[in-house]
Amino acid sequence: MINKLLIIGVGLIGGSLARALKKTGACKEIVGSARNLLQLQKAIELGVIDRYETDLDLAAQGADLIVLAVPVGATSAVLQALSRCLAPHTVVTDVGSVKGSVVEAVRRVFEEVPPNFVPGHPIAGNEKSGVEASTVDLFEGRHVILTPLSSTNAQALAKVRAMWQSTGAIVTEMAMERHDEILAATSHLPHLLAYVLVDSLASKDVNGEILRHAAGGLRDFTRIAASDPIMWHDICLANRDAIIPLLEDFRADLERLTDTLRRGDSAGILGVFNRAKALRDRFADYGLK
Amino acid sequence: MINKLLIIGVGLIGGSLARALKKTGACKEIVGSARNLLQLQKAIELGVIDRYETDLDLAAQGADLIVLAVPVGATSAVLQALSRCLAPHTVVTDVGSVKGSVVEAVRRVFEEVPPNFVPGHPIAGNEKSGVEASTVDLFEGRHVILTPLSSTNAQALAKVRAMWQSTGAIVTEMAMERHDEILAATSHLPHLLAYVLVDSLASKDVNGEILRHAAGGLRDFTRIAASDPIMWHDICLANRDAIIPLLEDFRADLERLTDTLRRGDSAGILGVFNRAKALRDRFADYGLK
Repeated sequence: MINKLLIIGVGLIGGSLARALKKTGACKEIVGSARNLLQLQKAIELGVIDRYETDLDLAAQGADLIVLAVPVGATSAVLQALSRCLAPHTVVTDVGSVKGSVVEAVRRVFEEVPPNFVPGHPIAGNEKSGVEASTVDLFEGRHVILTPLSSTNAQALAKVRAMWQSTGAIVTEMAMERHDEILAATSHLPHLLAYVLVDSLASKDVNGEILRHAAGGLRDFTRIAASDPIMWHDICLANRDAIIPLLEDFRADLERLTDTLRRGDSAGILGVFNRAKALRDRFADYGLK
Repeated sequence: MINKLLIIGVGLIGGSLARALKKTGACKEIVGSARNLLQLQKAIELGVIDRYETDLDLAAQGADLIVLAVPVGATSAVLQALSRCLAPHTVVTDVGSVKGSVVEAVRRVFEEVPPNFVPGHPIAGNEKSGVEASTVDLFEGRHVILTPLSSTNAQALAKVRAMWQSTGAIVTEMAMERHDEILAATSHLPHLLAYVLVDSLASKDVNGEILRHAAGGLRDFTRIAASDPIMWHDICLANRDAIIPLLEDFRADLERLTDTLRRGDSAGILGVFNRAKALRDRFADYGLK
């Protein structure tokens, strides 16, 4: 049971977490804090949090668990503010899509990573943002990856794990470097490609004809590219060491396919398409659709 | 009113067309023909067509409208067979995703494009295939592009236009070259990128970790890459003259973004993301979502 949960940043992720925990009764009190007062007032109106506190000192007082749910780029500033008022027994976790840069920021602010800090990442969300988009079931059946350090306190880890499990999420653990590599491949690279494609085509679409006839393919790409630009900017910069090699590989693979197409190499093209479809068909093995 | 409609190739598109026309009562009789007898038997079982005919001579006899709904790569062979039994008054149209190559095939087989041949393309479909996946409302509110030549008979054009309109589709006309350029951008390029990405990541995913943690981004790409490989192979080869320059441009844009990311150029990254999101937000203007 969590007595006082503080969520810093009550947007899609923070708001959905609050909703889920409220439903299960896993917290006695859920307090929100954020830079944006309107967002907090909206969260109260929607019944997402119990109350809000704009003063972080007051907000953190007596909290047994604090969740940082701000964009990756804002993590440092929030940690800095938090470092001045954090009680040693308070467990802190975050939801950032990149774990290496978050842990680095924690280390910069606290000198060493406090044993009660548990880096985490719920692999959930969509192209929407803001507390208005939050839902009670956002984490149901989704993966949450925790990347504890060897110095992480076992009880703190268990507390964060229990919190996520009570939202219906599947909680796993892995090294933060592995997390950042996997997310670069499954999430960051696809988002970058979608952004570049939409931007690339937009520059050619002088009279809106491309948009007007956007077929299935492009529509899916533009849906991905509708995600919050600032959030993705933060993620891509924070994880660029893992992303850049993948971008280079992809560009080489694309060059190879372009040559295959130029040569009219029928078997070569079909090979790529068949392998891709075979992988997709394995998705069912992992309960994805 | 169509007296006898012959649909050659009763898969997702041909089957959905039959279902829609049956519902509106726009045809007295809908006959199916295909290479795959099981597909035809399935179409009868599902009530998609009235009857089938494996002999193309018999199938075409007395038809006032014939729709070719076969993969682009099979067009030539079907046209060849059709050329031996086509009555001059019969109107023929197709549903191919590339129009230049279809018209070229017609020209090769018939020497010149018959006035009663109306090239067409319904921009509908999804990653599924086969008559089992056909639905009565696949074309509702979707665009159908007709690319008549200057020699196309006005009555034939009107007949094909009326057929599509009765399925609830929005019918427009444009030059076939323009069609092929627009579809290369909105559909063929996105599909190619999805195939290459999924294939590229699959080659790195030795223990299934990438798949298991496929986040929103990759999942959308793999959905696109689940489309029928043979169909997309045909399309990409048929339209490669329009696709290759787009692939080259995209690769250059991707290289530029990689450099931007490598330099840590925050404003440059945000610029791409913001422009892409702005374009996406204009989708609402076109009734897309």
